[in-house]
Amino acid sequence: MKMFLSDNNSGVHPKILEAIYNCNNGHEPSYGNDKYSEKAMELFQKLFEKDVDVYFVTSGTAANIIGLTGLLQPFEGVVCADTAHINTDECGALERFGGNKILYVPNRNGKIYPEDIEDFLSSIGDEHQVQPKVISISQITELGTVYSVEEIKELADFAHANDMFLHVDGARISNGVVALDSSFKEMITDTGVDLLSFGGTKNGMMMGEAIVSFNKKISKNFKYIRKQGMQLISKMRFISAQFIPYLEEGIWKENAINSNNIARFIKEELEKFSQVEIINESLGNILFVKIPRSWNEPLQRKYPLYVTNERENIIRIVTSFDTTEEDIRNFIDYIGGII
Amino acid sequence: MKMFLSDNNSGVHPKILEAIYNCNNGHEPSYGNDKYSEKAMELFQKLFEKDVDVYFVTSGTAANIIGLTGLLQPFEGVVCADTAHINTDECGALERFGGNKILYVPNRNGKIYPEDIEDFLSSIGDEHQVQPKVISISQITELGTVYSVEEIKELADFAHANDMFLHVDGARISNGVVALDSSFKEMITDTGVDLLSFGGTKNGMMMGEAIVSFNKKISKNFKYIRKQGMQLISKMRFISAQFIPYLEEGIWKENAINSNNIARFIKEELEKFSQVEIINESLGNILFVKIPRSWNEPLQRKYPLYVTNERENIIRIVTSFDTTEEDIRNFIDYIGGII
Amino acid sequence: MKMFLSDNNSGVHPKILEAIYNCNNGHEPSYGNDKYSEKAMELFQKLFEKDVDVYFVTSGTAANIIGLTGLLQPFEGVVCADTAHINTDECGALERFGGNKILYVPNRNGKIYPEDIEDFLSSIGDEHQVQPKVISISQITELGTVYSVEEIKELADFAHANDMFLHVDGARISNGVVALDSSFKEMITDTGVDLLSFGGTKNGMMMGEAIVSFNKKISKNFKYIRKQGMQLISKMRFISAQFIPYLEEGIWKENAINSNNIARFIKEELEKFSQVEIINESLGNILFVKIPRSWNEPLQRKYPLYVTNERENIIRIVTSFDTTEEDIRNFIDYIGGII
Amino acid sequence: MKMFLSDNNSGVHPKILEAIYNCNNGHEPSYGNDKYSEKAMELFQKLFEKDVDVYFVTSGTAANIIGLTGLLQPFEGVVCADTAHINTDECGALERFGGNKILYVPNRNGKIYPEDIEDFLSSIGDEHQVQPKVISISQITELGTVYSVEEIKELADFAHANDMFLHVDGARISNGVVALDSSFKEMITDTGVDLLSFGGTKNGMMMGEAIVSFNKKISKNFKYIRKQGMQLISKMRFISAQFIPYLEEGIWKENAINSNNIARFIKEELEKFSQVEIINESLGNILFVKIPRSWNEPLQRKYPLYVTNERENIIRIVTSFDTTEEDIRNFIDYIGGII
Repeated sequence: MKMFLSDNNSGVHPKILEAIYNCNNGHEPSYGNDKYSEKAMELFQKLFEKDVDVYFVTSGTAANIIGLTGLLQPFEGVVCADTAHINTDECGALERFGGNKILYVPNRNGKIYPEDIEDFLSSIGDEHQVQPKVISISQITELGTVYSVEEIKELADFAHANDMFLHVDGARISNGVVALDSSFKEMITDTGVDLLSFGGTKNGMMMGEAIVSFNKKISKNFKYIRKQGMQLISKMRFISAQFIPYLEEGIWKENAINSNNIARFIKEELEKFSQVEIINESLGNILFVKIPRSWNEPLQRKYPLYVTNERENIIRIVTSFDTTEEDIRNFIDYIGGII
Repeated sequence: MKMFLSDNNSGVHPKILEAIYNCNNGHEPSYGNDKYSEKAMELFQKLFEKDVDVYFVTSGTAANIIGLTGLLQPFEGVVCADTAHINTDECGALERFGGNKILYVPNRNGKIYPEDIEDFLSSIGDEHQVQPKVISISQITELGTVYSVEEIKELADFAHANDMFLHVDGARISNGVVALDSSFKEMITDTGVDLLSFGGTKNGMMMGEAIVSFNKKISKNFKYIRKQGMQLISKMRFISAQFIPYLEEGIWKENAINSNNIARFIKEELEKFSQVEIINESLGNILFVKIPRSWNEPLQRKYPLYVTNERENIIRIVTSFDTTEEDIRNFIDYIGGII
Repeated sequence: MKMFLSDNNSGVHPKILEAIYNCNNGHEPSYGNDKYSEKAMELFQKLFEKDVDVYFVTSGTAANIIGLTGLLQPFEGVVCADTAHINTDECGALERFGGNKILYVPNRNGKIYPEDIEDFLSSIGDEHQVQPKVISISQITELGTVYSVEEIKELADFAHANDMFLHVDGARISNGVVALDSSFKEMITDTGVDLLSFGGTKNGMMMGEAIVSFNKKISKNFKYIRKQGMQLISKMRFISAQFIPYLEEGIWKENAINSNNIARFIKEELEKFSQVEIINESLGNILFVKIPRSWNEPLQRKYPLYVTNERENIIRIVTSFDTTEEDIRNFIDYIGGII
Repeated sequence: MKMFLSDNNSGVHPKILEAIYNCNNGHEPSYGNDKYSEKAMELFQKLFEKDVDVYFVTSGTAANIIGLTGLLQPFEGVVCADTAHINTDECGALERFGGNKILYVPNRNGKIYPEDIEDFLSSIGDEHQVQPKVISISQITELGTVYSVEEIKELADFAHANDMFLHVDGARISNGVVALDSSFKEMITDTGVDLLSFGGTKNGMMMGEAIVSFNKKISKNFKYIRKQGMQLISKMRFISAQFIPYLEEGIWKENAINSNNIARFIKEELEKFSQVEIINESLGNILFVKIPRSWNEPLQRKYPLYVTNERENIIRIVTSFDTTEEDIRNFIDYIGGII
């Protein structure tokens, strides 16, 4: 049975598993000095069409925190939306590991814009206040919305004009690229993003997260920070080998296309119920749906629910790379049977 | 070709890989709320014959740091040998993540004893000084030596008599248990160890490390610290499933027996060269060997060397679960050919 | 000339200076083990009518941060108003020193109420989220408003009902007590406040800040944290001696009465200008005043201005213990002359 | 009665107190933007004959920690003697505030030399190990010994040759300058010291510590770190004004000459007792003296003792700026009476 709680309920794409299996081939240098890691790094450079610096890690939180603290002095802060994963779902990892303050502002459909950051500019140079140094956005956002390429570029330009950096939490970056029919080069490299948390785990990898730096100067010390961040994996090849088919054979795209399409399908099916209201403008694989409270109990008997807003009875539905039309039909039929 | 740089050059035992493959079976709850994690935890309780608390993580550094900082307030410190992995090989992760001081003392063959810790007792209650709170030892030690069960018990008793805890960095704990023909219960549970970093990666797992707490009171907040430590893996089943055959089918023992035996074999073979001196009293899978400096260059052409003492030209040799007698014979033959 | 930028532009009350002078009397034990510190602590116990624990420090930021981090584990956070000094004016000291997250919420006239904190209760027990543990309020608030005794009690009750603590940033606590014609016992001890940053510097002391704990269990380790916080002053008597006349001779009250009264006087005088709008409901010594933008330039020639809201041209005016009616008349006359 | 436990048992030189009194003269800008701070900074530039950057703080620990963390990234460490104050007497403040590791090495009469640091050079570039970045020495040392000007220069040269910095913990720097009949320029500026914790408190000031940077590039962010370090004092003039007579009228020299001379006098007097052994080669104001254990009890009745080595019964004796020959005679007479 498929769940809709999160895309991390899914397992691993068979080709990823095959890559893991195939790299288990005798001895290899540890800590990333192996041929699989080297190959995977080259594939990242092709993907972004740039000589990027890449650091593999085992969780999205690690990618965010190690990357961000690499950009920040302890008296500098990150501006982000109140809904940002780094602000709400990482148990204060940034504050603890980096000592940095998160300067969160009210989101607008999960996004922030240059005008939301302007108020912090007056802090620059004032020793009483945390110095704003990084703008962090999520693509796609935690509310399932998608920044346009132009919106990202505007934020990057604003950041650079004010001696700041732009970071993208890309836990679902492939869904974003696919949603806009864009490319990694166009959406990330060319807009001027400085640092990307490249997430593969939610899109069919087993444990595939990478810190991607677009400026080698800013990442020259990341290797020490990754080690301090407890993320220098000894048998690294088993992480990096996963990226080889993921990038080389376009699994990132195939998987994201499926989860985005399936999300559209479930949305269309749900809209047929007059009692249901789709809350967010979803282009990716996340839906927020207002359902009658009387549905919760019977629905939960089969499908665990993530109620994100108790007052409004809004639930979050996330599709995965392996969610099928049949899974959706079963879900819709089940709803039909309980109402 | 097999290397002798470290036991993390090896790959993964086939049965571990099979467990990973088999758990890739549809959707499962994330973050450790899956049936594989539950099963693995039960197996730990059987192994130690105690209702232990278990937290899976992806690196030995993470097991050490998350566990230790869970025991410590920031003004408290850890007493350990100067050779301890937490002191020399974790890039200051404990200091950074916990803010804690490491009070390192000169090792005696890689070990420390109660009398090495006594000097710190006078600090207790003095606000000018870091409060000693945890004694941390490595089993087997970084110098390849092995604490006897009695030595561990004496340290635990000393710790508890002084309101301290005993932590064991068990990156190679299975090698230690096997070396003394002991059991996890006898060596760890019954001696009074409070916290164990249980290492499986160096012994044939892909990424298998666990924080094992023998006192639920001290670990009640570990779940938050693991998340802050960026180690709450979303698709956790792929970590925990590895432990099922490892513990249930005794792979931990089989693998450790092999690497220990092979180390004894290589030692015996090396001792046949009159130019060679075995430096440490090795019962596990680590040898320190003094070789003629003239060997380094030709030897390195085929076998990368880890020279741990440049003045004395001492190299470290580590055997793995998959090192065979034939690998050793090839190595010895190669030496024979270059001298 | 007197300024109105802040109450820390003022100097030191003559009797405080005299106390400093008089304690310079030969040798005394250092680090607070002197007779002046002992006496000052007794006076705190009288003031609050409770066996409080007292730690002297040299800045208000230090009182806040050392106290708060003493209450918090690194995965726990502080809920406060967005305008709180700890959130906006301490350069991220809490995040850096404690690694703790500040969970700031929109203020209501500088205050927060139990309903503003309720949303965080759902985080309790969820390892993905910072655990709310302390509610921190400022008395008087940064916007010059004053919590009633009942409001403080409601927050304390709410905190305790949810296993949290209530902290009061009392940088201007004497102004608050005087504003409501209350007492320290009634406003702080009896309402159930757990921890108070007792500020004397802004009210006529030279460097007189104290962490006051109303529960010895929570503060049993504060001495180590103060030392780590670099605030264990060697010649402590010169801090603690200041508190003796401050508390024993009622200087705290005399000074606060003056600055509050003078603030009321300046408010009444400013209200006579039809172009001026008093923004905040001031009971203490802080006024926010909207003035015509054309006044800024000539006014600044003599009186430095702190414009807190550029769009609305609102300035902050703070009176001090030594501000006189004549100072106000000069200020008002000067305004009369420039318009 | 004068004590010999520490030079911080003493009070304040009358001229320092007078300076405090005289600056209490109406309103002044806060946080160091006052005329006294400006004047004091100029005097530092004269003293060192260099355009140094100066940050006033209220404790020696603060000077050390804020300065050092300003030079360090969290993955970088400080090499120092095991006896260094930052290592033994600051309750782990560096580890907590900066997350930095202290790489302590066995002292040689309280000192370290380039060869003691060489072992750490092999860590450079290795992500598993803390990167050595600062060498920190104390002048005079905690064992009362004094680095020669040449020794300091050698350490500075060694540091710079290896891309490191040299920090001097100058809690008793004036005693060191006087002991060698040197100057601040010769001993600090000209040797190439990068950062100095300038201590005045132990030498007759009330609270007079300053971070002095000899390279404005390295200290450009110190203002933020001082604020985060809770050491931006609001009524700063009362700190900085103390430095004016201290530097301008040579009180630093006068006081240090007295305490050094008095230490020599007490040493000569103690040497007359055949039962006594002077342990350290003292040029400053600290003596380590081995006395018969039977003296402890009667001696303590009048003079509190600091036994630094229980096995050998060695006590530490420290003289102050205000210790007189008469104080010494009384002490010696008292000893005569009890033996």
